[in-house]
Amino acid sequence: MSFVYKADPTRGAVWAQRFAQQLPDLPFRTWPDVPDPHEVRYLAAWEPPSDLATRFPNLEVLFSTGAGVDQFDFSVIPETLPVVRMVESGIVHGMVEYTTLAVLSLHRDWHTYAQQQQQRRWQARRVYPASSRRVGVLGLGMLGRAVLEKLRGFGFDCAGWSRSARRIDGIECHAGEKGLQAFLARTDIMICLLPLTDSTRGILCKPMFDQLPRGAALINVGRGGHLVQQDLLQALDEGQLSRAVLDVCEPEPPPPEHPFWHHPKVVVTPHIASMTQPETAVEAVIENLRRHRVGLPMEGLVDRARGY
Amino acid sequence: MSFVYKADPTRGAVWAQRFAQQLPDLPFRTWPDVPDPHEVRYLAAWEPPSDLATRFPNLEVLFSTGAGVDQFDFSVIPETLPVVRMVESGIVHGMVEYTTLAVLSLHRDWHTYAQQQQQRRWQARRVYPASSRRVGVLGLGMLGRAVLEKLRGFGFDCAGWSRSARRIDGIECHAGEKGLQAFLARTDIMICLLPLTDSTRGILCKPMFDQLPRGAALINVGRGGHLVQQDLLQALDEGQLSRAVLDVCEPEPPPPEHPFWHHPKVVVTPHIASMTQPETAVEAVIENLRRHRVGLPMEGLVDRARGY
Repeated sequence: MSFVYKADPTRGAVWAQRFAQQLPDLPFRTWPDVPDPHEVRYLAAWEPPSDLATRFPNLEVLFSTGAGVDQFDFSVIPETLPVVRMVESGIVHGMVEYTTLAVLSLHRDWHTYAQQQQQRRWQARRVYPASSRRVGVLGLGMLGRAVLEKLRGFGFDCAGWSRSARRIDGIECHAGEKGLQAFLARTDIMICLLPLTDSTRGILCKPMFDQLPRGAALINVGRGGHLVQQDLLQALDEGQLSRAVLDVCEPEPPPPEHPFWHHPKVVVTPHIASMTQPETAVEAVIENLRRHRVGLPMEGLVDRARGY
Repeated sequence: MSFVYKADPTRGAVWAQRFAQQLPDLPFRTWPDVPDPHEVRYLAAWEPPSDLATRFPNLEVLFSTGAGVDQFDFSVIPETLPVVRMVESGIVHGMVEYTTLAVLSLHRDWHTYAQQQQQRRWQARRVYPASSRRVGVLGLGMLGRAVLEKLRGFGFDCAGWSRSARRIDGIECHAGEKGLQAFLARTDIMICLLPLTDSTRGILCKPMFDQLPRGAALINVGRGGHLVQQDLLQALDEGQLSRAVLDVCEPEPPPPEHPFWHHPKVVVTPHIASMTQPETAVEAVIENLRRHRVGLPMEGLVDRARGY
């Protein structure tokens, strides 16, 4: 049996080294160098090959090298094949850093000061206590929880929303369609950390923006597909939203003529909020292999009906 | 006896209200409306009047409405008059927010991405783990300690330097002339939180920059007088320093032709890192008045020999 890695080769070198040390009995192959496809039991990929089912007939587990699986074409993946998302501490730390940075930059008018500097203007804006800023996170998985935990430590008034009801100590949790209205009505800075599924595609749209308090801000660190771009531009131009920080876009990169690039109320970063760190990612996969071999459930196993 | 407030009148209104509630026996006067100068026992001022000694002959305590007293002209303040700095939670929270924002913005290349957005460039830069960034704080008073505590929570490799030796759990502390070299040699992101005194004026200068690792960054949230501006510009242009985030300047604002305004490696904000919040500032002063009246030492009492 063997393990195949099909993603960024630089990171793959880190994986190969750890596998050699920790699982010397399991040959590690880096795509496309796979001598015997029949021996392949495990595949870790950002984009699996479309002939996966026939190419690797003895595959037991498919690992995503990213936190999401929305880049997978499930129509070509056998229904009985377990699919596992990447759940590892490097992704969490990166996301907590980025969202803290984005929230503080909005809270403390950092983008306004950058524009003032270009105009050589020295003008202080009022500082509001963090307790008066209502931050809301859409999506209460591992990332959403870690982000809320950190932001609470600054004294922000924090709440979260998820499809099914969750409980987090010290955080006001809303759930489902019924809970969404109350969540939106109290959210000054909204962070999207949802998985991209059929039911969340286009969720960041005019009806949602209209329910936020006037002047609210948006941080999208989910996927570009969550956002209806025209609705955002309209909400910004009308003043319903004050600013948007977007780390994701559809497509990536946005074309050169796209209004996001030069809109004074839009901050764009090139999908860098959070990246798997190869050192911690490979540890997470090795741990999941150990669990799989002894029959324990793997961390991050995807429920295909939910889509994440 | 009475209390005189001589600073921003909008904030003063908050003070007046709290005094009326909590110290109804102590008349509160807002400068310049002081009917009987002889009855004045306490003065809270950003800039005290230069004829302080003769104008208020019965003054018992002079409070600064700011965290520092470097704006005071001590030559006109009687030597025996106790002078008290502002030590209050609002200043601490604001400073922790600003420095976290500034450190994360440097750590995660936020300013580079802002420049890339202007050029419509979508290019990810490598993300380094926080544990590989060595953050160093000059000045280990209440602010420096609170900042280090917060940054440590992100996993940054943290150290501090102060004139006299300090101990902070979990933080590598350096002290005095002898400790400065080792502190500088290990600091990638340096934050100045020193008081401005005769011995710290111009401390951020070429000899110090030269001892930092090449490509280090500077955050100055102390005073403009700490920085030798020409030395900073030279270090940035030569690449010895990679970037500077400056919340203070000398003078403020910098003149329109000043290179800081348009230097691609300089971020300028208009002295907004931390402001006293009137609600918490007045509580701190009232508590100090209570302590003074019963003979307890006041929080923030200035040692004039040290200058802070």
